[in-house]
Amino acid sequence: MAKTVYNTATSIDGYLADPENSLEWLFTVPGGDPEQSEESETPLDEFGEFLAGVGAICMGSTTYEWILEYEHLLDNPDKWEYEAPSWVFTSRNLPAVPGKDIRFASGDVAAVHAEMVEVAGDKDRWIVGGGDLVGQFFDAGLLDEIRVSLAPVFLGDGAPLLPRRILSHHLELTEAKSVGQFACLTYRVK
Amino acid sequence: MAKTVYNTATSIDGYLADPENSLEWLFTVPGGDPEQSEESETPLDEFGEFLAGVGAICMGSTTYEWILEYEHLLDNPDKWEYEAPSWVFTSRNLPAVPGKDIRFASGDVAAVHAEMVEVAGDKDRWIVGGGDLVGQFFDAGLLDEIRVSLAPVFLGDGAPLLPRRILSHHLELTEAKSVGQFACLTYRVK
Repeated sequence: MAKTVYNTATSIDGYLADPENSLEWLFTVPGGDPEQSEESETPLDEFGEFLAGVGAICMGSTTYEWILEYEHLLDNPDKWEYEAPSWVFTSRNLPAVPGKDIRFASGDVAAVHAEMVEVAGDKDRWIVGGGDLVGQFFDAGLLDEIRVSLAPVFLGDGAPLLPRRILSHHLELTEAKSVGQFACLTYRVK
Repeated sequence: MAKTVYNTATSIDGYLADPENSLEWLFTVPGGDPEQSEESETPLDEFGEFLAGVGAICMGSTTYEWILEYEHLLDNPDKWEYEAPSWVFTSRNLPAVPGKDIRFASGDVAAVHAEMVEVAGDKDRWIVGGGDLVGQFFDAGLLDEIRVSLAPVFLGDGAPLLPRRILSHHLELTEAKSVGQFACLTYRVK
């Protein structure tokens, strides 16, 4: 059955990005850089399988702007690697990646989620982040699964993974394994 | 070879305790309460094995005072479950648990570490926490291993697991597995 999934890399101490909003700490982990796919064992292989099963994507504006800038997408729109329709939550006017199915949204996540469910059909819905947007999906009872790939890094500070208090009656650990240097954990949201 | 090990339970998002310094969120996880050992699979079994191999213990004052109060140790000193000599880092005068080998310390962790190595002999040294004390051992190049048992909980805020920036060239994931509802990860510090 199709699910709404938060799937992300994070530091051991639960940060998506460091205080300078950088991911350099992630890309220097063996297997952590999408541009360097030579590594024998990397969560990016599994992530590719996950992405192939995704029919709708949602992210916050900070995440979107980070990808825009990092990949120079306005000049190189084909570096946008997602085929599924993608919603970006923002209260500002942001540029769309030319020729890609990017839809801007604001307000209640439930309305967007309903559209995502319809568009994705029997495929999954991927909430990319950031943490507070994911929290809004959780608050609305719309999050089914959390997959975190912990890089072997402590950051001490940065953008929080999921800034909510969610106790154990809401979460069931369904898998914990190492993939190369990453610890990959899956939780079912109850 | 004997090691200096940080071994702790934590939330998924890297907090040792919630903002009220409580561990209730941990004790309500199946297998997370030391007083309720009926659970079939719990990290506490492995923790018992770990503890049997520990010859010296070190903790910060907040951790020590939490145990003192939670276990009512001044009235029930035999609830102090550690046989190994235990150092408590504090700048204040704190009561010792009557009849137990508790040694108060302050200042540089290196001097205490040298004593711990001598006392522990071929047994391991356990740094209990909190995070900043562990960080001081890391800063001094004295931390060999980090073992974290992630409870299926997000806290959003609280006492940090290890408030340092430690990049992947310093850490090697050596094990990742589930034990009941806990994700148990071991890192070698390089």
